[in-house]
Amino acid sequence: MIYFDNSATTPIYPEALDTYIKVSQAVIGNPSSLHKLGVTADQLLQQSRKQVADLLHVSSKEIYFTSGGTEGDNWVIKGTAIEKAAYGKHLITSAIEHPAVSKTMQQLEKLGFEVTVIPVDAQGVVSAEAVKNAIRPDTILVSLMAVNNEVGAIQPIKEVGNILEAYPTIHYHVDAVQGLTEFDAVIQHPRIDFLVLSAHKFRGPKGVGILYHKAGKRLAPLLTGGGQESGQRSTTENVPGIASTAKALRMALEDRTVAHQTEMQLKGILIDFLTGYEDVRIFSTEQGAAHIICFAMKAVRGEVMVHAFANEDIILSTTSACSSKKGDVPATLEAMGVPSEWSKCAVRVSLSGENTQAEIERFKEVFHQLHTKFQKIQK
Amino acid sequence: MIYFDNSATTPIYPEALDTYIKVSQAVIGNPSSLHKLGVTADQLLQQSRKQVADLLHVSSKEIYFTSGGTEGDNWVIKGTAIEKAAYGKHLITSAIEHPAVSKTMQQLEKLGFEVTVIPVDAQGVVSAEAVKNAIRPDTILVSLMAVNNEVGAIQPIKEVGNILEAYPTIHYHVDAVQGLTEFDAVIQHPRIDFLVLSAHKFRGPKGVGILYHKAGKRLAPLLTGGGQESGQRSTTENVPGIASTAKALRMALEDRTVAHQTEMQLKGILIDFLTGYEDVRIFSTEQGAAHIICFAMKAVRGEVMVHAFANEDIILSTTSACSSKKGDVPATLEAMGVPSEWSKCAVRVSLSGENTQAEIERFKEVFHQLHTKFQKIQK
Repeated sequence: MIYFDNSATTPIYPEALDTYIKVSQAVIGNPSSLHKLGVTADQLLQQSRKQVADLLHVSSKEIYFTSGGTEGDNWVIKGTAIEKAAYGKHLITSAIEHPAVSKTMQQLEKLGFEVTVIPVDAQGVVSAEAVKNAIRPDTILVSLMAVNNEVGAIQPIKEVGNILEAYPTIHYHVDAVQGLTEFDAVIQHPRIDFLVLSAHKFRGPKGVGILYHKAGKRLAPLLTGGGQESGQRSTTENVPGIASTAKALRMALEDRTVAHQTEMQLKGILIDFLTGYEDVRIFSTEQGAAHIICFAMKAVRGEVMVHAFANEDIILSTTSACSSKKGDVPATLEAMGVPSEWSKCAVRVSLSGENTQAEIERFKEVFHQLHTKFQKIQK
Repeated sequence: MIYFDNSATTPIYPEALDTYIKVSQAVIGNPSSLHKLGVTADQLLQQSRKQVADLLHVSSKEIYFTSGGTEGDNWVIKGTAIEKAAYGKHLITSAIEHPAVSKTMQQLEKLGFEVTVIPVDAQGVVSAEAVKNAIRPDTILVSLMAVNNEVGAIQPIKEVGNILEAYPTIHYHVDAVQGLTEFDAVIQHPRIDFLVLSAHKFRGPKGVGILYHKAGKRLAPLLTGGGQESGQRSTTENVPGIASTAKALRMALEDRTVAHQTEMQLKGILIDFLTGYEDVRIFSTEQGAAHIICFAMKAVRGEVMVHAFANEDIILSTTSACSSKKGDVPATLEAMGVPSEWSKCAVRVSLSGENTQAEIERFKEVFHQLHTKFQKIQK
């Protein structure tokens, strides 16, 4: 089995699963409890928080654990809306956001908020200048993803950060769920107020996310209750999941330089190979993220391609897991101006540092066979 | 170590942890993905959903998985508020709810909703009649817990359900996080629209909850995004956690008759024993849940007692984990009219079916020693 669907989800690191198991067995207290089992659980929780904070070069008190990327995005957007509604009701985002952002914006529109959706160019990249021009006196939030999940386009997070230096009251939210591979180059900027990660995208457990929440920035809580996470995110903490997440993040960041090189190399080989086919269009650029290659074979629908590859034990996907079952036109490709006869044919290869050149060679072989087969059918 | 803090959290069943491990290792796909790994993950997800639905005697499409009790309560209350604001803005709850309910109600009050808080009697029980009298034409939600988490008082869920038969448009929400031990007697009523459970309270994994959501009842989603859980709760599903939760629920419900008998017996012994002390007040009644005994020794603060017992390897808690660190007066005891000089001395023993008579005997021994010691100090 060749797994090329790492943007949908990743297998948990055995070491991170091991942490989950050990903590589940050994740390049975509730971190909120006063007694020694509670103290032990709380110590591990704070230790995990510090580990994550150190890895992200921020302070422990700026790290919150959530149930995943979707909760992180919802919390930042809705929490900003509730917190800042008295000051303004205008939000800025892009046309290529994950539904966790775009659908949340749409829900707020129904509640009287106004959303400006910045278009992208043919490569799927937002213009920082366009973001600047959209800013109004009543703007309370700019929400941009770091790396697009469908084609891998890297967004100008730092440039927008520089622009927002002049607008200190606007919350700046970065959905970095696909951005960890571009950690150093893209998602480190002092103007970022909120940054969202999802553990299962970096070989951590499912059901855990990380929110970086800059000290001093105010956000209404999405989950109110027992007052955990400094009163900002109530619910009994998932200590085994959180400890496992900290472990996975450390490993993913340690692995990232080598992984990035591997992915860049494999992506290069793939793009070179696919460029050789006249009836193939590639939607990912060389400037995009190392791990995502989105392309289409003319007149072969994405789901047909996905199943054909799966029959050969090669796992790739239509452009995003979240949208794949609904048969929607991929939002990013649509925003890039790709005609629907092409976008409905799009598939995505998403790599990890574990993928190998031999796997890419096998992919090429199968692709070639499928190409010949589909060409015959079409004739 | 004797663990008497099962209302705060419970150790995961080894079998449920085993399910978590096996699924984490073997089922790596994202249930939303089209390819065969996605299909396998989705099948397991739906199988877990069906198992939970069967256990709760409801339909699969009425079961949603969440990140825990707090998210479930927040979703039902906020989702009802958003969904029904056009019809009314009046909510009814009780004075002894978990903060996941009471704090959420308070957040809504700031947004223009009106909340009627029904008082309780000296035993911590809400009057169904009082709930009825609070209903107004603009009432959109009645939210009651099944079993109080601090003293174990069982609430008239069925009686209120009967009353609400005459008010079909009002959402009826039951926080049953502490109610699973009283499953048959308390939390099964056809008028219940939404019922919230938390896996880590019944020896399932942390970070997973169950929401029963009656078909046809509308709730705005709290987490918007990729459209998972029929569009009602977006985020990549925590398949290992969900499968593990289904396993734990099955085991907990299978064990429940024997566990309930054991807990009733142990509670009876404890109450008999504590009744023998003149300077001890017991806040839990015989009619209350089998697993919770809340009491106070005069002039000995709850946290002092908790630490004294912990020194003897007996783990009990002040009245609730969520409130224990903040030094708040226990909300339930306050609502019951217990004076603060007594409520600040309250501690909670919360049992599981695994606890034994020998453990209770050891508790009695330690209690007696501590009582002698504290009496000497006070003289």
